[in-house]
Amino acid sequence: MSRTLTGVGVSPGIGYGPAHVVEDAVPAPPPGDRHDGDAEAETHRALRALEQVAADLQERGERAGGEGRAVLEAQAMMARDPELAAEVARLVGSGVSAARAVHEGFGGYREALAAAGGYLGARVADLDDVRDRAIAVLAGRPVSRVPAAAAEPYVLVARDLAPADTVLLSPDTVAAFVTEEGGPTSHTAIIARAMGVPAVVACPGAASVAPGAPVLVDGTSGRVRLDPPGEEVGAAREAEAARRSLLARATGPGATADGHAVPLLANVGGPGDLESALACGAEGVGLYRTELLFLDRPRAPSVEEQEEAYAQVLEAFPGRPVVVRVLDAGADKPLAFLPPPGEEPNPALGERGARLLRARPEVLAAQLTALARAAARGGARLSVMAPMVATAEEAAWFAAACRAAGLPSAGVMIEVPSAALRAADLAAEVDFFSVGTNDLAQYAFAADRQVGALAALHDAWQPALLDLVGAAASGAAAHGRPCGVCGEAAGDPALACVLVGLGVTSLSMSAPALPAVRAALARHTREQCVLAARAARAASCPAGARRAARAHLPGLAGLTGAGPDDPEPVEPGVSGSSGRSRG
Amino acid sequence: MSRTLTGVGVSPGIGYGPAHVVEDAVPAPPPGDRHDGDAEAETHRALRALEQVAADLQERGERAGGEGRAVLEAQAMMARDPELAAEVARLVGSGVSAARAVHEGFGGYREALAAAGGYLGARVADLDDVRDRAIAVLAGRPVSRVPAAAAEPYVLVARDLAPADTVLLSPDTVAAFVTEEGGPTSHTAIIARAMGVPAVVACPGAASVAPGAPVLVDGTSGRVRLDPPGEEVGAAREAEAARRSLLARATGPGATADGHAVPLLANVGGPGDLESALACGAEGVGLYRTELLFLDRPRAPSVEEQEEAYAQVLEAFPGRPVVVRVLDAGADKPLAFLPPPGEEPNPALGERGARLLRARPEVLAAQLTALARAAARGGARLSVMAPMVATAEEAAWFAAACRAAGLPSAGVMIEVPSAALRAADLAAEVDFFSVGTNDLAQYAFAADRQVGALAALHDAWQPALLDLVGAAASGAAAHGRPCGVCGEAAGDPALACVLVGLGVTSLSMSAPALPAVRAALARHTREQCVLAARAARAASCPAGARRAARAHLPGLAGLTGAGPDDPEPVEPGVSGSSGRSRG
Repeated sequence: MSRTLTGVGVSPGIGYGPAHVVEDAVPAPPPGDRHDGDAEAETHRALRALEQVAADLQERGERAGGEGRAVLEAQAMMARDPELAAEVARLVGSGVSAARAVHEGFGGYREALAAAGGYLGARVADLDDVRDRAIAVLAGRPVSRVPAAAAEPYVLVARDLAPADTVLLSPDTVAAFVTEEGGPTSHTAIIARAMGVPAVVACPGAASVAPGAPVLVDGTSGRVRLDPPGEEVGAAREAEAARRSLLARATGPGATADGHAVPLLANVGGPGDLESALACGAEGVGLYRTELLFLDRPRAPSVEEQEEAYAQVLEAFPGRPVVVRVLDAGADKPLAFLPPPGEEPNPALGERGARLLRARPEVLAAQLTALARAAARGGARLSVMAPMVATAEEAAWFAAACRAAGLPSAGVMIEVPSAALRAADLAAEVDFFSVGTNDLAQYAFAADRQVGALAALHDAWQPALLDLVGAAASGAAAHGRPCGVCGEAAGDPALACVLVGLGVTSLSMSAPALPAVRAALARHTREQCVLAARAARAASCPAGARRAARAHLPGLAGLTGAGPDDPEPVEPGVSGSSGRSRG
Repeated sequence: MSRTLTGVGVSPGIGYGPAHVVEDAVPAPPPGDRHDGDAEAETHRALRALEQVAADLQERGERAGGEGRAVLEAQAMMARDPELAAEVARLVGSGVSAARAVHEGFGGYREALAAAGGYLGARVADLDDVRDRAIAVLAGRPVSRVPAAAAEPYVLVARDLAPADTVLLSPDTVAAFVTEEGGPTSHTAIIARAMGVPAVVACPGAASVAPGAPVLVDGTSGRVRLDPPGEEVGAAREAEAARRSLLARATGPGATADGHAVPLLANVGGPGDLESALACGAEGVGLYRTELLFLDRPRAPSVEEQEEAYAQVLEAFPGRPVVVRVLDAGADKPLAFLPPPGEEPNPALGERGARLLRARPEVLAAQLTALARAAARGGARLSVMAPMVATAEEAAWFAAACRAAGLPSAGVMIEVPSAALRAADLAAEVDFFSVGTNDLAQYAFAADRQVGALAALHDAWQPALLDLVGAAASGAAAHGRPCGVCGEAAGDPALACVLVGLGVTSLSMSAPALPAVRAALARHTREQCVLAARAARAASCPAGARRAARAHLPGLAGLTGAGPDDPEPVEPGVSGSSGRSRG
């Protein structure tokens, strides 16, 4: 008997396979759980388990590379914390069993982390994952909850997934992701898009799917079908195959059907992402996030070290545009050497991004110097932009800093509503804009990206978000400046057409999203895009906007994987899920 | 030798007097501080000090009434916490001195509070204040840092002020407030405006003013003059006297010089604020915050208890409008019986206001029923509105809930940028808007109201904020709906004229701000207001907007207390202060 669950589709495509259901967590060893006498051997056992977990995490991190590596290395450091080891040894010495000592030892650590709040507070989930892995080792249970290989690709179903669960997966193993919690910008969503695997998050009921049950996942509409009839699977797979064949035929630079060029660029976090960007035909880099270089180190990297890292990316795209975002520290990305000046009740509304760099001009100056030196070595056409700029005055400050460093092109991210509203004022001060739709939505709707229950407000089809993108593009155009989009919205083929219709001049996205966007643009004229944008903004809700836009975009049929009849994606209600993503 | 400090003027008028400088804090008793043997007597001494502080706080709260009472009663409960007493007794029993035991005993409490984050985390400052008061009692030092009476009114100067310091002050005692930290919506700013006393916050250098030094404070421009020459004081006082006399002559309902009616309403937190509202000529209530009734209690008040409270306010304004905001819980106002569903990394962007009520329909239904019953008893014309509404869909949901309860007029706060941007969509669903400029600015600029370093982004003259107010008013007008403003911006006479020019139809503010706004409106035509609004929006920074608007508002001269030459208020830089307000 087939059944349907509905969540938020966050990575397009059709996936089908048996459910691999990840158990929630290792049960905590009971209080009072004691060992049978040899404290020394038991201590040894506990510390060996911690070291095994640390080594495993480190090794996975090294194999994964990129941003996943930084996260897993931080987890390995947690497992190797000397104070934790001392506390575990003390507990085992007093008779507590190894597993219980690990559980209690992490307790104090956990409290300190939770008390720190903000980004560190959010890392409690990572810490719990380390703890559960160590307890699993001690119980002789498998450390990893997710099989790295399988006879046939499975649909990975879970309440939520840890980075260590997912960084080493490949499309050969996983047919699709379905999680009960998380939102469009959650860890799982980002990983799935980077892998090019369909995913549905914020899906109530997912955690109770029966292991092994056949599951058909539509990552566009957010529909998850359990035990679907064979003919339904066949039809969905045929449509998916047709879609992939359409995508394979889309090549060359991004442009509308009538030849209006729209450069299609990749979002990258470091040199590890370049291969995929080149393979997917990126015409350059629209967002190079530089935080990775600064994470988990006691002081900023030297100008020389930065120069080498930037040069690597610039060399990969000779003659093409590469847009580097200067350090976006604070909020969910605090850095040891660059903490916000005080405790922040709401880090996302605090001294982050450009605000923090303005208070620490030596950090910005070093980064701009390194960028100027890397650019002088040739390679790509470098542009540099600042995050979290809210006013024209701040934009002018950043442009002056770039000029002082000898950089020819300075821009700003448009991710604060005030910056979009006053885009013409800001455009008078800088050379270009790049709209960050994820943060822009977070502030425009006053809805945390990390809160699953507010996922409906993060639907990129929300007309208010389209209004702000339109305002940014118009303000830029008034001063003859380009205005790109580098948020997740740019990777949705239908929305990409609407963004072009709003006046956006380039689109930057996860590399795997490039072919579908390229195909969607190639099948519509600029005029169709403009009409679709106008229709979307005339609607009063996301579903209405999507429907109205698609009526002007006939070439999307068969392209976005929603099946032959292209049904309306169902939107989960505001109360549809109360889960939290892992950010 | 006179000298000038510059901060943010947050309560208008001129104040002059000797500086009373509040010391930062009681120094902590040193670690290892021990008593001389009689543990029982020492324990008694410690617990008596805590009880004395509790009784003092409770008594101050009772005398203060209103919202101050709730804050001080919560502090008294902290001092009377039985676990704290037990821990203090245990420490003294082990030989620790009473003062040190109090210090250490609060330490654990403090950690738990800080770990809770959000609103409870912000209460750490209140807890520290209780601790310092108890240690002061034990040291034989004065408990209150602020004299309640003085031969001549003094200028109260401090790094920051605790509610217990300020709730019992009167304009007879305090000529002005100057704080180094805090922002326009900080505790000190709100108290000062409610008292009608000039205040400057976020003022670097304030904490190092010499005690007793003569200080001249301009609460409009934010200028603080130390040791000013006598003739300067005389001129400022004359201008202030002229201003007050102008205000005294402004009576009757709010209207522009050409007779365009703009109802002038009061913001109230409960029956305790009604007297001041009536004395200042409020034509009704534009914002009745109902949180006070729900604070610090284990369960929601009954429908009957709520009905009585609402009826009291409605009876005070027979035939006049009273706009009640339903419970705005969450973020900085969590309630014991209505917690957000999970830990929130950014409570201000979390499940607060209407989002929380939607998840708990029984709480909303009880409040709407109580409101409908109170309205049925006669008195004022009741309107009810929802906080934190972001979309037309949410507005429609709230209007339906009001209709189901038999309430004739349902509206929404416009405090989320998306709601202002899509105002026409929302206006199709509800009967009226009320713009909350404080939260609207917080989200539009992604800048926490509680972070002093971001105060410049909270300048209500920021053109982007004026754009959003204009969008809200235009959207309302498109459907023939009224659109009021109930944020702090409404109480600034110049800005009030601009708001009317933007199409705002009523203004609601702290009662003491009413006379100056009434006078400002009476001296300008609607056309002048429209021209001022247009000029302000054409500017690209707050200072430019203020200057441009004032050029169209000649009648403000002498009205806003900025002195005879009406100098341009100086704006502190973004890096001007890194302090945090007490919210």
